[in-house]
Amino acid sequence: MGAESSPSTTSSSPTLVPAGHPGVAELFAVIAYGEIAAFYRLADDAKFSPSLRGRVALASMAGAEMSHFETLRAALVDRGVEIYAAMEPYRQALDAYHASTTPSTWLESLVKAYVGDGIAADFYCEIADRLDPEVAAVVRDVLAETGHSEFVVREVREVVERSPLQKDRLMLWGRRLLGEAITQAQYVLAQNEELAELVILTCGDLAGIAALFDRMQVEHTKRMAVLGLH
Amino acid sequence: MGAESSPSTTSSSPTLVPAGHPGVAELFAVIAYGEIAAFYRLADDAKFSPSLRGRVALASMAGAEMSHFETLRAALVDRGVEIYAAMEPYRQALDAYHASTTPSTWLESLVKAYVGDGIAADFYCEIADRLDPEVAAVVRDVLAETGHSEFVVREVREVVERSPLQKDRLMLWGRRLLGEAITQAQYVLAQNEELAELVILTCGDLAGIAALFDRMQVEHTKRMAVLGLH
Repeated sequence: MGAESSPSTTSSSPTLVPAGHPGVAELFAVIAYGEIAAFYRLADDAKFSPSLRGRVALASMAGAEMSHFETLRAALVDRGVEIYAAMEPYRQALDAYHASTTPSTWLESLVKAYVGDGIAADFYCEIADRLDPEVAAVVRDVLAETGHSEFVVREVREVVERSPLQKDRLMLWGRRLLGEAITQAQYVLAQNEELAELVILTCGDLAGIAALFDRMQVEHTKRMAVLGLH
Repeated sequence: MGAESSPSTTSSSPTLVPAGHPGVAELFAVIAYGEIAAFYRLADDAKFSPSLRGRVALASMAGAEMSHFETLRAALVDRGVEIYAAMEPYRQALDAYHASTTPSTWLESLVKAYVGDGIAADFYCEIADRLDPEVAAVVRDVLAETGHSEFVVREVREVVERSPLQKDRLMLWGRRLLGEAITQAQYVLAQNEELAELVILTCGDLAGIAALFDRMQVEHTKRMAVLGLH
């Protein structure tokens, strides 16, 4: 596809990053650890579920995270990268995200599962737009909708439509999720040069990254509205 | 495939049970709830893992349980059966099995994941041998090895080969797992007439069920030996 690696200097015409860029393995590794962390978060949040149906919904979402993880593991093996060592540098930031946004109710769990996954998907898919098509396909595949959002949307809407108090609490919760996600994303980028370079290449420049965070805010607001949180 | 529903009276020539037998949906439902219960048990046991690799191994096994669950859900939907209602009667016995065999160490978790899955697979696959081929294929598919046993075997053998104390403790643990599994399997059969009829049909008669439990004991002993527990 004629991917050139010469970095662009304007945010309006970012370069397609070649599959061989060292940041690609880093990108796969951070997403892979994200899947593991999300798996355990979802499994743990099931304790709040008022029904077997809710427990099954969370287990299905967690199962989908693991099938995405296997795709990333295969992609890393193809590159000769040892996945456990590769994931290690990202544990702290991702664990910190989950520790600072541990749900305390069933509805908080559901909003987090929906909104948190969405924030991550927005971030990585925007980056994927500027990656070699083969790499982009892996990223899009593992960040695709897991097909359980309908359940979450129905459960959350039903409650917030009749409880302004719950609605207010969950709106604050959603804001916190976005804030913590962006904070930890910045830590991750500050920590790993190759990944940071890859993100800068895909965004054009630092102003491009700021613009990306702004677009994530817009998408987040739309997603909250789908849940009745607007 | 010429499946006849006339029950056989000798244990040596059991009848092939037709796909339309009402016990088939019950069989799918009890296995489905088994997958959910195993999912949450594995996810919870990850707290004992000394390494990220161990956490990933358990999460992968749990993910495989969910992919099996989806197969069973589809099979039940095909039969017009509401899965949550269908699973409900089996919650108590399966939850009781897990409550009475909650691991307290990492090695107990691993032995349980390996040996417990094996016991269930022996039980259901022997039954599957006498079911309509289409039904049997679903059962065998969802009880297939999840491909993580190598990890468990390596981890357990390594410890028991150098610690006779650990070996003794884990041998008792294995015996308890088999005992509790058979106890709860009997409760399940005593509770549901259609499922009990299906199992009796597949085993020939009540003596055939006793013979099935004996064969499960033999297979269990072999499986323990693979772990170095003999």
